[in-house]
Amino acid sequence: MRPLRWGMIGGGEGAFIGAVHRMAARLDGRYQLLAGVFSSDAEKTRRSAVALGVDAARAYPTVEAMIAAEARRPDGVEVVSVVTPNHMHYPQSAALLDAGIDVICDKPLTTSLADAEKLVKLAASKQRLLGVTFNYTGYPMIRHAKQLIADGLVGKLRVVQVEYPQGWLATALEKTGQKQASWRTDPKQAGAGALGDIGSHAFQLAEFVTGEKVSEVAADVSAMVPGRVIDDNVNVLLRFANGARGSLWASQVAIGHLNGHRLRVYGEKGSLLWFQERPEELLVCEAGQSPQFVRRGDPGTPNSSVALPGGHPEGFIEAFSQLYTDFAERVTARIESRSPKAASLFAPDAVTGTRVMAFIEAVLKSGQANSAWTKI
Amino acid sequence: MRPLRWGMIGGGEGAFIGAVHRMAARLDGRYQLLAGVFSSDAEKTRRSAVALGVDAARAYPTVEAMIAAEARRPDGVEVVSVVTPNHMHYPQSAALLDAGIDVICDKPLTTSLADAEKLVKLAASKQRLLGVTFNYTGYPMIRHAKQLIADGLVGKLRVVQVEYPQGWLATALEKTGQKQASWRTDPKQAGAGALGDIGSHAFQLAEFVTGEKVSEVAADVSAMVPGRVIDDNVNVLLRFANGARGSLWASQVAIGHLNGHRLRVYGEKGSLLWFQERPEELLVCEAGQSPQFVRRGDPGTPNSSVALPGGHPEGFIEAFSQLYTDFAERVTARIESRSPKAASLFAPDAVTGTRVMAFIEAVLKSGQANSAWTKI
Amino acid sequence: MRPLRWGMIGGGEGAFIGAVHRMAARLDGRYQLLAGVFSSDAEKTRRSAVALGVDAARAYPTVEAMIAAEARRPDGVEVVSVVTPNHMHYPQSAALLDAGIDVICDKPLTTSLADAEKLVKLAASKQRLLGVTFNYTGYPMIRHAKQLIADGLVGKLRVVQVEYPQGWLATALEKTGQKQASWRTDPKQAGAGALGDIGSHAFQLAEFVTGEKVSEVAADVSAMVPGRVIDDNVNVLLRFANGARGSLWASQVAIGHLNGHRLRVYGEKGSLLWFQERPEELLVCEAGQSPQFVRRGDPGTPNSSVALPGGHPEGFIEAFSQLYTDFAERVTARIESRSPKAASLFAPDAVTGTRVMAFIEAVLKSGQANSAWTKI
Amino acid sequence: MRPLRWGMIGGGEGAFIGAVHRMAARLDGRYQLLAGVFSSDAEKTRRSAVALGVDAARAYPTVEAMIAAEARRPDGVEVVSVVTPNHMHYPQSAALLDAGIDVICDKPLTTSLADAEKLVKLAASKQRLLGVTFNYTGYPMIRHAKQLIADGLVGKLRVVQVEYPQGWLATALEKTGQKQASWRTDPKQAGAGALGDIGSHAFQLAEFVTGEKVSEVAADVSAMVPGRVIDDNVNVLLRFANGARGSLWASQVAIGHLNGHRLRVYGEKGSLLWFQERPEELLVCEAGQSPQFVRRGDPGTPNSSVALPGGHPEGFIEAFSQLYTDFAERVTARIESRSPKAASLFAPDAVTGTRVMAFIEAVLKSGQANSAWTKI
Repeated sequence: MRPLRWGMIGGGEGAFIGAVHRMAARLDGRYQLLAGVFSSDAEKTRRSAVALGVDAARAYPTVEAMIAAEARRPDGVEVVSVVTPNHMHYPQSAALLDAGIDVICDKPLTTSLADAEKLVKLAASKQRLLGVTFNYTGYPMIRHAKQLIADGLVGKLRVVQVEYPQGWLATALEKTGQKQASWRTDPKQAGAGALGDIGSHAFQLAEFVTGEKVSEVAADVSAMVPGRVIDDNVNVLLRFANGARGSLWASQVAIGHLNGHRLRVYGEKGSLLWFQERPEELLVCEAGQSPQFVRRGDPGTPNSSVALPGGHPEGFIEAFSQLYTDFAERVTARIESRSPKAASLFAPDAVTGTRVMAFIEAVLKSGQANSAWTKI
Repeated sequence: MRPLRWGMIGGGEGAFIGAVHRMAARLDGRYQLLAGVFSSDAEKTRRSAVALGVDAARAYPTVEAMIAAEARRPDGVEVVSVVTPNHMHYPQSAALLDAGIDVICDKPLTTSLADAEKLVKLAASKQRLLGVTFNYTGYPMIRHAKQLIADGLVGKLRVVQVEYPQGWLATALEKTGQKQASWRTDPKQAGAGALGDIGSHAFQLAEFVTGEKVSEVAADVSAMVPGRVIDDNVNVLLRFANGARGSLWASQVAIGHLNGHRLRVYGEKGSLLWFQERPEELLVCEAGQSPQFVRRGDPGTPNSSVALPGGHPEGFIEAFSQLYTDFAERVTARIESRSPKAASLFAPDAVTGTRVMAFIEAVLKSGQANSAWTKI
Repeated sequence: MRPLRWGMIGGGEGAFIGAVHRMAARLDGRYQLLAGVFSSDAEKTRRSAVALGVDAARAYPTVEAMIAAEARRPDGVEVVSVVTPNHMHYPQSAALLDAGIDVICDKPLTTSLADAEKLVKLAASKQRLLGVTFNYTGYPMIRHAKQLIADGLVGKLRVVQVEYPQGWLATALEKTGQKQASWRTDPKQAGAGALGDIGSHAFQLAEFVTGEKVSEVAADVSAMVPGRVIDDNVNVLLRFANGARGSLWASQVAIGHLNGHRLRVYGEKGSLLWFQERPEELLVCEAGQSPQFVRRGDPGTPNSSVALPGGHPEGFIEAFSQLYTDFAERVTARIESRSPKAASLFAPDAVTGTRVMAFIEAVLKSGQANSAWTKI
Repeated sequence: MRPLRWGMIGGGEGAFIGAVHRMAARLDGRYQLLAGVFSSDAEKTRRSAVALGVDAARAYPTVEAMIAAEARRPDGVEVVSVVTPNHMHYPQSAALLDAGIDVICDKPLTTSLADAEKLVKLAASKQRLLGVTFNYTGYPMIRHAKQLIADGLVGKLRVVQVEYPQGWLATALEKTGQKQASWRTDPKQAGAGALGDIGSHAFQLAEFVTGEKVSEVAADVSAMVPGRVIDDNVNVLLRFANGARGSLWASQVAIGHLNGHRLRVYGEKGSLLWFQERPEELLVCEAGQSPQFVRRGDPGTPNSSVALPGGHPEGFIEAFSQLYTDFAERVTARIESRSPKAASLFAPDAVTGTRVMAFIEAVLKSGQANSAWTKI
């Protein structure tokens, strides 16, 4: 299978998430980075192109310039990753889709539910992929959990406890000039704080693994650090459409946690537990039995696209890479006019991204209404 | 120090919690069981007395009979444990206090807040102890946690996550005739379900360790098992008087858990994590440092009254025994007209028991009001 | 069942292991402490008797005096625990057995293999119990492990890795006057160091659980702390009679460990892992499956004599108490001229104690022969 | 920094370790794969080249052909990875070094100590790198451990316990035609079994982290699976030059383990524990303190070349990639006539590879001499 011709918006010098996207794509080996608008600063873009081995002629000052120039080439880019600040995701993704280019967009998809819904329609009408990198769905043991539940292991869903605590914003780090802290605590740039950054992952993972939908939320949205003007701790009660109950906790002030993303699912027949910092492990319990400590590589577990033997730990980038593999499969299948492999459909797209925007808006609304139950 | 002359109401043949109280008292060695009303069935009481090495003449048919007869003896009982069904706690404890006898009552203290408040007053006016066995407060590492927080390790409290999941009622066990399941799922006998049985422990532990008070709750109270008429899963948002936030989860349908009581406390300077099934361990994290894995026996940790060296695991009964040791110290100090040792004041009493009743009532009220915030 | 009339040699004021024996016996409830020689100092013995609620008339200055006086009473003691320093175990146990009294002896049974063999014969000829408190055999999950192996879960034994690291003697604590450190590092009082104190437990547990016998050892016996004249770190290769291989490590200089006793057993069909500091858990793996995380209380697991529900942690004393329960059953069965319950035969006796002495002697011999393989 | 021009010997279709090397190099981004002899079958080599995006003209039938042709190009390869079967490592590495090409060789370096020693000399005389991918040295927390020990955290080394258990060869998998099992259990192809494959890693890691040398070994070398003619379980006693003691266990029949590589180091002042399946964690204990649970990303910990934030798990490939980063730095430094960055010197080379061959030979010799102590 030939590599896809790949472009990138954002991700220039010093950008964290852009580098992650590139490592993920490289691990997969199905993408060839050929063009980009790596920065809003044209000089930086040029320097980044050189560093990345991209032909300087294909380092563009604007998205529009890139779209126009690449369209004129027989070997123009086919798929473009958007890794710019959140508020740019919408216009850039829209422009690319409009030009018939498949898009891989970093999360969140947009900064408003309305924009997200427009992108869903646009992608559908253009018949192009708009993948969104909710990366935790790429972990093999998360996919195993999803499959076990789909196969009936937990039975009717009853309780979901999901959380994503971090500790890095326990002080007013944003006042020290730290870049990540600054934009993530600025409501104009980030929209929501802990809720948008990590609560969104927690919500999405819960729905992804269980296959059930949250129907309403009751939320307590707080800013714990004095002077902070955006949420840094969110406690949410969840009600699922099927009657299940649960809670979600996202925090950036939970000292001691790095990325303590944890999902626990209980049904009438069994339960599952997964912890992101030990992503190769899954605790599975069927009613009337002792819990099983399942590891990638154990009989019945799936492998990732990276395909390391079990016990040789795969991690964050490998999971991210799995999404790139899935996106490549979906784009390639379209190009080749065939159905993509079923597994590639697990990778999140604009519909997922839109669902998450709806969740964020509902939580904020409930928070403003003193935790009143609010429909998603 | 001479052993206290001890009596027991309840705890006859086959009773679980009565046996635990006796093991706890025996481990401590400061109690001599001399009298009792071990059952409402006089014949059972007599058989139990024999099995327990209690003089048959001091095995009484009723509490009133015991009080009257023991009062006439120079060596009558000084302290009595009440381990009867919940609805009997109030009248029996009241009668004993009224007669000037110190009381150790199993939790919950009563089945209504009003009754609990009456007992607080009665104990105060009679100047007698009314200890309540919220046993998790007896674990050495829980006391260490409380002390670390009192010493400022976590700083201003911000977030508390506390939970107590069990899985044993994931099916309608009560319909099989199982005795524990039957009375615990009967609203008349148990009052509340998971909330009263284990949610009460979770709440009490959170307030005990943090030293802060929950001011209001927003609760989702559910019965997950078809046909069950009492709560078996409760998700509660917590607001503390000092501004801290948190959540509490109690469940009897969480397959895979035995007694998964877990407390996590986060403040502006640090955090603490404790898990009941590994009670000798405490994870402590100060901001800017790696977490410390603290075990009983490590430098700076307190020991229990049982005083095993660290690494020789103490557990549930040892913690229970700690409360008996504390109660013995408080009763003995009163008899000897001296101040009790400070540590013995950690043991919960009627004020604690009343506070827990207030919590239960607030949660039920919030649950009936579609999770509206409700003051405690 | 009436309580056994019980006496104690050793265990006076301030004695650690004596207090453990008493707590274990009290938890069980089948022993009534009626007489004793609690110290070699008669005044201390008297004070201890008072503190323990023992009739001062039955606090004896010597073992001989106790044997003689108790023999004259219709209610003389039936079973006596020996918790004196190691070198006294032999003469005292012999004297008691000779007088027809059942004996419970702390480990090690003796300080020489020859003495131990004499006791085996004496106990047999007198038809009395000589129980030895290798207490780790009392843990419910250890008994579960033994049963699983007996039932064929691991198949033919292949590899055993057993260890018991501690860190408390990582410095020359014996030079500070610390009492435990002083006698345990004195070859005259202790015989062997880490080997005798904790290596003995590791060896005994391995044979107990697997049901297989170690046939020879190759040992590296070291004193790591400058100036120490007894072993504080022992690495031993093991060969079992059935062809299995393994290693044993005992250390008192392993900083960070409290009582890190750990046993791992591998056979042709499965494996087991147990760790003393989390004694309620057992990791079990059958070939071709994920490991199971088995906890006391899970289906199929046995309970202890204490009989707490699973998830309410039992620990060191409860395991110790199990041995006392077993000993009580065996003594009572003899008195009642019936067969003891099968489970009570798990409790270690003089044969076990003798086997451990043989191991210690073989290891020391191998150590002196530059780790040459040495038969047990 | 421009990418290095890279070639590969071995690693064609279906090869596991070759794919790992490529992923590691790609993650790093400093290597451009331009030429190769991907298989001994020329047709396979051609197909592999196409799949890997290598110019078919630079897919060579033999190493000699590649060396000759690439030498004639101005843009010939500068560094070549050797990922062929073990017995080919020596002649191929020698030929490449001889031609002035830097070499990255999969472990083991050779199949005999004598060959390894020749390669050390050849690399030195040619002033070229001969890196060997003992990949566990690339984990950030292993480097952190090495640094902590170099900084004196554990003090004088006393005890090392290192092990590498796997379970995949617990049955005679080699008789089923499974490819990995077949060559790894064939003495002609593999030299040693568990010892060479994984015991070598355990030994190398112990010396790497502690900075101390093993001076002699006493080994019990076994084949546990009936009919197997190579070792599948090795228990080794270790003596270090500085007087420290320890043991090493490597096993392929330890059911339940995937790649349970574990290192524990104890000194007079502290200890360290690391477990490969949770590679981002390190348990550190200083005497007189509770253990610290240190995670990559905690203050004071180093980052890897991949540079993910802590709590976003890095694993096996990332560690492997670290070695490629280090090798690239060392090769580039030579090309640029400057000193390489200090950290890059951590990466293992021919001297390390030779040391490991000496260990393997000593263990086999000791095993044949009934575990007699044997000098390395």
